[in-house]
Amino acid sequence: MKLHPMWQEYPALQADLSASLQLMEKSLKLKNKAVEDAILAMIHSGGKLLRPAYQLLFSSFGSDKDHEKAVALAASIEMLHTASLIHDDIVDHADTRRRLPTIRATFGNDVAVYAGDYLFVCCFKLMADYASSMKSLQMNSRSMEKILSGELGQMSKRYDVDVTVADYLENISGKTAELFALSCFIGAYESGASLRFANQAKEIGQSIGLAFQIMDDILDYSQAADHLGKPVLEDVRQGVYSLPLLMTLKTDRARLLPLLAKKEMMTDADTQAVYQLVQNGQGLIEAQTLAAKYTDNALQAIKKLPETQDQSKAYLYRITEQILGRTN
Amino acid sequence: MKLHPMWQEYPALQADLSASLQLMEKSLKLKNKAVEDAILAMIHSGGKLLRPAYQLLFSSFGSDKDHEKAVALAASIEMLHTASLIHDDIVDHADTRRRLPTIRATFGNDVAVYAGDYLFVCCFKLMADYASSMKSLQMNSRSMEKILSGELGQMSKRYDVDVTVADYLENISGKTAELFALSCFIGAYESGASLRFANQAKEIGQSIGLAFQIMDDILDYSQAADHLGKPVLEDVRQGVYSLPLLMTLKTDRARLLPLLAKKEMMTDADTQAVYQLVQNGQGLIEAQTLAAKYTDNALQAIKKLPETQDQSKAYLYRITEQILGRTN
Repeated sequence: MKLHPMWQEYPALQADLSASLQLMEKSLKLKNKAVEDAILAMIHSGGKLLRPAYQLLFSSFGSDKDHEKAVALAASIEMLHTASLIHDDIVDHADTRRRLPTIRATFGNDVAVYAGDYLFVCCFKLMADYASSMKSLQMNSRSMEKILSGELGQMSKRYDVDVTVADYLENISGKTAELFALSCFIGAYESGASLRFANQAKEIGQSIGLAFQIMDDILDYSQAADHLGKPVLEDVRQGVYSLPLLMTLKTDRARLLPLLAKKEMMTDADTQAVYQLVQNGQGLIEAQTLAAKYTDNALQAIKKLPETQDQSKAYLYRITEQILGRTN
Repeated sequence: MKLHPMWQEYPALQADLSASLQLMEKSLKLKNKAVEDAILAMIHSGGKLLRPAYQLLFSSFGSDKDHEKAVALAASIEMLHTASLIHDDIVDHADTRRRLPTIRATFGNDVAVYAGDYLFVCCFKLMADYASSMKSLQMNSRSMEKILSGELGQMSKRYDVDVTVADYLENISGKTAELFALSCFIGAYESGASLRFANQAKEIGQSIGLAFQIMDDILDYSQAADHLGKPVLEDVRQGVYSLPLLMTLKTDRARLLPLLAKKEMMTDADTQAVYQLVQNGQGLIEAQTLAAKYTDNALQAIKKLPETQDQSKAYLYRITEQILGRTN
């Protein structure tokens, strides 16, 4: 069980995350062993497990100390995340993720469709088995609906050079932030916290998710390609324009438009040129400013949370600083 | 709202099925209007709505006459069925279904992946909103798990000419029968029937589903291609061998093997030759005998059900006779 090294300084949380991974593993029961192994490899490929981590941390704020349940619901959320990654890789034609071949690359789109579906179902199964309230399942369905409606909405905006910052924020609000928000909500609510508190947790998750996705989109433009687990700028070729590019489009439109107009025919030299224009403009800095705003919102809100008996509140603060300050 | 003409002789059920379709329509809220329209077209393309029909009929056996809930849960099951068809069409590379272009053919695999996911989620949303017991959600997840594990299992058996009748039955037991079984279970259980009765309903659904799928597989070999909404024998080219072919393989192996060995390179003449061999052999008749056995099991079990205040028991019997006797 190889966890991301960032959890070494949080031994109790590390142990819970390990237990969640183990439960995910145990929940898989496929006759097709090759596919089962591929899903297992993906689960163990060193994803950061941020969503289950936030869920576990927020479960310390309620009065119900059902440890087994908290671990199971965290596993459920990570399965949902993994399912959506498998389907995203189909849509993005991605060949690698976290330096491993994707399921679609190894087994084809066909297997990847059902493998993702299977994990979705495993998520709902764990949730239905362990959640105490129908409310959590309803929240879960609504979040998923928002995520998918967002993904489908984004598709209709591909290659649209007039996507606004508001469109972008709405899009990542569904695509990424919603699942962070759900994790924080369910963590709090299923541990017996009040609905009011759980909604506060949800808002914190929302801010963290927005900042996280903006930072991720900034990383695409600020790191060398060989430092990333997925092909940088493939998104641009596929017409998905993220914040740094959208902000650069405002000032450097004349030079960017002819490159982007080539759409899927963009050469590597074209995407490199886009990369340079974004790096040299103000777009990256403006994006960083916006990410910092959401990070600050989250940190301020965490500060105001009630104290917990364990270290959870302090950890929430520190982990949020760590993951969102990662390019500093 | 165009329902299949078979429901005209059952006006009350017809009205409930219409209401379920309307609710399905109302549940869709996509920003991508083109995809929403495609899903709507699929919903209204004249599918028989057998699964919601069985669910509604079994909801007459309990003491809880919550009509709105029964309609919503029926809509939920049909959404699950539609979601799985959208994903099946990706896996089967299908261009048409029910004489309409498939979503993957019109919008590409990418959109079809998320569109199916979206419908899965709509199913869970309706279920979480209307089901009274976590048990139903657990059953729902377990059934879905069985269906997907079956689909993935089947994939690893593609082009396997040694698939046994037992393998085939296990496969369709997941692929088709499970959803019929789930419909009958949830219909009964959520209407307040006992768990024991709901399990009886589930077994009836299981027999109906097995007979239904065998009849469907027989139809592929006993009707002219232009009478069917999906390309006949495409399955054979893709290595999915159904009961009539498996039974013919037992007696006519020498002539079939060289044809099947061409796998996806089979020409239309090759698939026509397979078609002829199955038609002229005993495989079709043996398959019909097996379907008749499951049909009979279901009808006998329906006969033994308690009487209902409305016509539901009589309808259950008649509809089961109708749909399973369709080639007579």
